[in-house]
Amino acid sequence: MAIKENQLKLYNSLTRKKESFEPINSPHVGMYVCGPTVYGDAHLGHARPAVAFDLVFRYLKHLGYKVRYVRNITDVGHLENDADSGEDKIAKKARLEELEPMEIAQYYSDRYMDNMDALNVLRPSIQPRASGHIIEQMEMVKKILDNGFAYKSNGSVYFDVVKYNKEHHYGKLSGRNIEDTLENTRELDGQSEKHDNVDFAIWKNASPEHIMRWNSPWGSGFPGWHMECSAMSSKYLGETFDIHGGGMDLRFPHHESEIAQSVAANGKEPVKYWMHNNMVTINGQKMGKSLGNFIILDDFFSGNHELLQQAFEPMTIRFFMLQAHYRSNVDFSNDALIAAKKGFDKLMKAEETLDKLNPQDVTESAFDVNEWINNCYSALDDDFNSPVLISYLFDAVKFINSVNDAKVAINIESLDLLKKYFRTFVFDILGLRKDEAVSGDSELSAKLLGLMLKIRHEAKLNKDWATADNIRNKLTEMGIIIKDTKDGAVWEIV
Amino acid sequence: MAIKENQLKLYNSLTRKKESFEPINSPHVGMYVCGPTVYGDAHLGHARPAVAFDLVFRYLKHLGYKVRYVRNITDVGHLENDADSGEDKIAKKARLEELEPMEIAQYYSDRYMDNMDALNVLRPSIQPRASGHIIEQMEMVKKILDNGFAYKSNGSVYFDVVKYNKEHHYGKLSGRNIEDTLENTRELDGQSEKHDNVDFAIWKNASPEHIMRWNSPWGSGFPGWHMECSAMSSKYLGETFDIHGGGMDLRFPHHESEIAQSVAANGKEPVKYWMHNNMVTINGQKMGKSLGNFIILDDFFSGNHELLQQAFEPMTIRFFMLQAHYRSNVDFSNDALIAAKKGFDKLMKAEETLDKLNPQDVTESAFDVNEWINNCYSALDDDFNSPVLISYLFDAVKFINSVNDAKVAINIESLDLLKKYFRTFVFDILGLRKDEAVSGDSELSAKLLGLMLKIRHEAKLNKDWATADNIRNKLTEMGIIIKDTKDGAVWEIV
Repeated sequence: MAIKENQLKLYNSLTRKKESFEPINSPHVGMYVCGPTVYGDAHLGHARPAVAFDLVFRYLKHLGYKVRYVRNITDVGHLENDADSGEDKIAKKARLEELEPMEIAQYYSDRYMDNMDALNVLRPSIQPRASGHIIEQMEMVKKILDNGFAYKSNGSVYFDVVKYNKEHHYGKLSGRNIEDTLENTRELDGQSEKHDNVDFAIWKNASPEHIMRWNSPWGSGFPGWHMECSAMSSKYLGETFDIHGGGMDLRFPHHESEIAQSVAANGKEPVKYWMHNNMVTINGQKMGKSLGNFIILDDFFSGNHELLQQAFEPMTIRFFMLQAHYRSNVDFSNDALIAAKKGFDKLMKAEETLDKLNPQDVTESAFDVNEWINNCYSALDDDFNSPVLISYLFDAVKFINSVNDAKVAINIESLDLLKKYFRTFVFDILGLRKDEAVSGDSELSAKLLGLMLKIRHEAKLNKDWATADNIRNKLTEMGIIIKDTKDGAVWEIV
Repeated sequence: MAIKENQLKLYNSLTRKKESFEPINSPHVGMYVCGPTVYGDAHLGHARPAVAFDLVFRYLKHLGYKVRYVRNITDVGHLENDADSGEDKIAKKARLEELEPMEIAQYYSDRYMDNMDALNVLRPSIQPRASGHIIEQMEMVKKILDNGFAYKSNGSVYFDVVKYNKEHHYGKLSGRNIEDTLENTRELDGQSEKHDNVDFAIWKNASPEHIMRWNSPWGSGFPGWHMECSAMSSKYLGETFDIHGGGMDLRFPHHESEIAQSVAANGKEPVKYWMHNNMVTINGQKMGKSLGNFIILDDFFSGNHELLQQAFEPMTIRFFMLQAHYRSNVDFSNDALIAAKKGFDKLMKAEETLDKLNPQDVTESAFDVNEWINNCYSALDDDFNSPVLISYLFDAVKFINSVNDAKVAINIESLDLLKKYFRTFVFDILGLRKDEAVSGDSELSAKLLGLMLKIRHEAKLNKDWATADNIRNKLTEMGIIIKDTKDGAVWEIV
């Protein structure tokens, strides 16, 4: 599809308004999204940014852009306390389980990929690991030091926020100012190394028991957490690129510090459009590993968790996420997921019904398919508004079912358009897919059901009503409904 | 299971004999296996070491060892010509496809993992990437330089093989001596940088157009291909570890050079047991990407290749590999794969039959299950002899089928043992698994078939022979055989 220039608008967290999307070097688009810190299983909160930016990735590609999508894996440097103190999250997990930290990182990044595959999240173009880009991070630290925006202290290097803020605005993304931040920062161990509480580590001296460490010009240590995203995004996407995404909880200090690091190192704003997804909440509180109120994705898929009334398939989770706009909050509840499942099943059933519709020789359809297509695109062009798109899809579902019930008619041209775009929006752009187990249309099962109907049909021809009824009743008990139509019997799994 | 010390013998390529396996720090075992260079799809040749060392990994774990299994991903430094010349394989592919090299590496490593999952190859504990360990490689280069076994030349660093060979034997693994090697080395571009033709690069100066490069004390460049395995194995497994595996084509120059690098840097032999799998051949020639005679795994799974008569499921490929000892050659042919499929299906059918067997009150079984278990373990203990193990499994298959045909009897204790160990050897150790599509035992299909038999049973009770025969005949057409037994009818997919 050719790119419809200037149609797409997206909300830029930096300017706090919707802007027309104009890539720096169209048709190329560079997109970086903060990925997981791999020290535990992915939970519902992790599915949110993955699905949100998968929609962005899919829609941009659909529009014809050539997207290089980079999503990192944090396998070193993310300390327990985001403000530079405490143990490295992965090293701590490794110590507790007596494993090499990289075994932990490998295990949980494999599991994360499996979960993403289950959610039908497309794989990013590059998934760089923080531990694999130590040189790039050291070189950026060096540049920041050379430019005078950092200082060495006890084998660590700290970003000089106070000095930076004199020339630039540290806080422009999150809307904070240093004075507020100063007041809100708690006293922390080892902070005496810093000139000021707001300063943050860009290189950390490793304590003797720290396993993950590399030699650097400043001693043996490891990069500060914010450093990896600055170094890896500029390596793979350039010093200024189009889109940087992540959860809104990362705006401060993580993304704010990324901006400061890039400006201090390269003298350039790193990102044209900042995009932030809202949170998944549970009982009104953000779901997070550090908060201990999370439910992992595998538990949703198995139903094996005390807060879950049943198992929920990956596509139910995906649809649940997409029913909310990415900048809105999503509150977890069993009822909301059960409702999402019903909606998803309705959508899938309508998609199957599409192939059963018989077009009529009518000049005008009761449903203006072209207008409907435009409406769907408008929803996506309005900052990827998936809930509005879904509401249009349900308008189409209603119409499809009416045609199926012979209440209204559609002509062949409109039906072909409707089939094409309904599937484009549902499968290609929203990234939903049929679950084999749900629709039960495995090849063998379909053959067996076809055979069953044939035997029943022959029984009826032989006036053997007992056998015919017996087959129908037994299938009904299994949840398979036989409908006799003028074109013969059809089956449906309810 | 507790470790049966000193039972397992394995063939050590270094000593050229079978040795008792005695880990350096039992029950811990460190194992390193050379993984793929990710610039193309995995072909049948790649499946060989993956399956061979998966058997080793599975059996060692079964014996109770705690195995840390490291398999690397080569995403930089592997030049077209193994002797240090030509373009970087991944950079060349990237240039041809106008992509960032890391996009190529990510794409093909994701595809490799998918293929390995399909083959039921367990995931290694750590899958380190060469590009993610540049510092570790530079530090090892520095050590080798410091110890006088390397020299700088035009921004590159070369390993001084001639000097090394005066104190140590370069060629002990491959059985070569330097003089032979000298005679067999062709004249290559840029070799004038070397003091001697047998020297190899441990750090390569990057030409101006080379994208993948890092700053080093010797200039901007990238590590030599052999360096990554030495640096990453010692980082994750220590300077001396238990098992190093790979294809026998890697013995020279790759593994030979790994030994030299480690001895030169650390003064220690890096590996206690070297293990090498033999090749997959096609028309008697090694199947390889560089030879252009390969068939990729996805083509086997789809059957979409002019040399393939049909599609072959991943388990057929796995079983085909395991039918040969890992140190024997495997020659590809359609007939051999078709035979492997038959054998695999027979094995799976016997496994299903196990649950249908009725134990009898006999004191002695016609088949000594304990002896059989010991024989199976002996095969594995004899250098992982999978074809011998498989022949014992077919002895069991024959016995299982005889019990099923009521020709011989088994008592409950023997049956329980047989069930347990048959499944342990087939599923846990050989790593085979049932293919849902093959056995057709998806839940819905099984229910539908059950229902079909019920309707037929009722028809027979009503003396409605026409319906009963109709059901049987229609199922037969679909390849499903109904057998009437004294306990009722059963079905079987042929």
